[in-house]
Amino acid sequence: MINRWIELDMNKLVDKALKNDRVAIGRLLTFVERDPRRAGEILSLLPEDGEYHIIGITGIPGSGKSTLLSKLLYRYSKRGFRCGVVAIDPSSAFSRGALLGDRIRMQMHATNPNIFIRSVATRGLKGGLSFAGVAMVDILGRLGFDKVFIESIGVGQADVDIMGIADTIVVVVVPGLGDDIQALKAGVMEIGDIYVINKVDKSLEEANKTYEYLKFAIESGEIGGGEWIPKIVKTSAVMDEGIDRLTKYIDEHLETIIKSGDIIRKRDIRKKILVRLLAEKIFIDRLESIDINATSGNFYEEAVRLLKRVIEPS
Amino acid sequence: MINRWIELDMNKLVDKALKNDRVAIGRLLTFVERDPRRAGEILSLLPEDGEYHIIGITGIPGSGKSTLLSKLLYRYSKRGFRCGVVAIDPSSAFSRGALLGDRIRMQMHATNPNIFIRSVATRGLKGGLSFAGVAMVDILGRLGFDKVFIESIGVGQADVDIMGIADTIVVVVVPGLGDDIQALKAGVMEIGDIYVINKVDKSLEEANKTYEYLKFAIESGEIGGGEWIPKIVKTSAVMDEGIDRLTKYIDEHLETIIKSGDIIRKRDIRKKILVRLLAEKIFIDRLESIDINATSGNFYEEAVRLLKRVIEPS
Repeated sequence: MINRWIELDMNKLVDKALKNDRVAIGRLLTFVERDPRRAGEILSLLPEDGEYHIIGITGIPGSGKSTLLSKLLYRYSKRGFRCGVVAIDPSSAFSRGALLGDRIRMQMHATNPNIFIRSVATRGLKGGLSFAGVAMVDILGRLGFDKVFIESIGVGQADVDIMGIADTIVVVVVPGLGDDIQALKAGVMEIGDIYVINKVDKSLEEANKTYEYLKFAIESGEIGGGEWIPKIVKTSAVMDEGIDRLTKYIDEHLETIIKSGDIIRKRDIRKKILVRLLAEKIFIDRLESIDINATSGNFYEEAVRLLKRVIEPS
Repeated sequence: MINRWIELDMNKLVDKALKNDRVAIGRLLTFVERDPRRAGEILSLLPEDGEYHIIGITGIPGSGKSTLLSKLLYRYSKRGFRCGVVAIDPSSAFSRGALLGDRIRMQMHATNPNIFIRSVATRGLKGGLSFAGVAMVDILGRLGFDKVFIESIGVGQADVDIMGIADTIVVVVVPGLGDDIQALKAGVMEIGDIYVINKVDKSLEEANKTYEYLKFAIESGEIGGGEWIPKIVKTSAVMDEGIDRLTKYIDEHLETIIKSGDIIRKRDIRKKILVRLLAEKIFIDRLESIDINATSGNFYEEAVRLLKRVIEPS
């Protein structure tokens, strides 16, 4: 009986969400975050033929990507596009909650009916951390949002994986950071369709150095390699400089991937990524509920036995 | 025949490694990195009753933890301890290889027979990224290293997981970083047994602020909570200041966990973690070799089907 009720509720929720009912959208995304089975269900209930454009924005903390995103939201919503944002947050019990998302929310008018912002804390979603975020992005697109932004901190492989679902990837860097910080960016330096050198107001000289560095990496083939030649744009998000050019590049990239058919191929890839991440999430959830035996001293055998136990309950 | 040969080789390798043959140790660790089955085998071949002490050192890039570690290595090796280091590196094809490890290697005399340093690139070890690093740490301990350091970049849940295997956790922070960088540290701010405020030479005023902040967090119970009250120490690794105090706190923490029996309990937990991470690694490796189907439109069912396919071959 209870299941039946939830079933009905879900269809109603989806209908409401498709009509841009913000409370309904929020509740759908909460289901996605909490229950992988529901997430799969919601995805299956939604149309997949919308014309949404997923834009990934990545960059280390301090690169000003939240401000940049805020400027992009302003421009795209003004042009009549419905914009969704999913911010992947490295939050913790200590910092208590969502950092990126909150910051954007404060900057933007939260009341704009054409902008919907959600942050996903990675804490507690260990392993399956990417699933909720990726599913939310796809769901916002399927719900009729024209531009769906996914924002994450540019660190390591997890970030590269998250960005893998975007149609267009914007990598935000700042001029003049030390080797240490460069190391952080390492994983994401190869994946940009557009590179933004932000905070050029701080040091134009350093910005030009970074520009030459990126230009060389693109020309020598270290970055890019497909039909689209990665673009570089210098901005000052705070001063609202260079944002129109960035918007132009994002639009050009969209045109290119529509023409080449890559946007359709990407959609199929995204579906596979979602299935894979969902499988990982189910796996990790079950693994964590199992009491592990490690007494025999044979590590490999015990690991294989554990794997089998994870699958049994299904 | 080939299997038999490798079997013999492995026993010989382990024997040599137990006699501190550095080439043998290096080869063992390479097996661990490349082949989960071998890793399990090696773990099973090694004695588990050594008196090794695993020290985790975490902190964001730029916190100077490599220099700090280098000073600790100097002191502990001088006191006659054999020291091992496993550095978890956020490397990529772009940066080409190991960053943290290399830096330490440059600073230290690589020829010191009592110091063994190895870095593990996280790239390509997606999902199962932690297994190789954690297994290497445990193996170095089982091989007779007295102090085994695991160094990683203090970012998010992955780092908290890695640090979970350490007997003693040292969190390195720098004074006066902005909110952005604080966000990065979020996940690891709760887990320290010892907090190092490094680079105090840069700004003593900021260092004192950070000190008061940490002190308050400890006193109010936001940090810590067990028998051991987390310690705070101000250092300047570059100026070699405060390191003796840090060493003293590390030794005190070891004494405390030996007395309480926590070091033994930790060892059992570590075995379980190793089995779990190995299971994850096997799972992810297999998952990546499977061509995913995502055509039915039923995401949850396809994810569960995928899970079953992953387990079948065993």
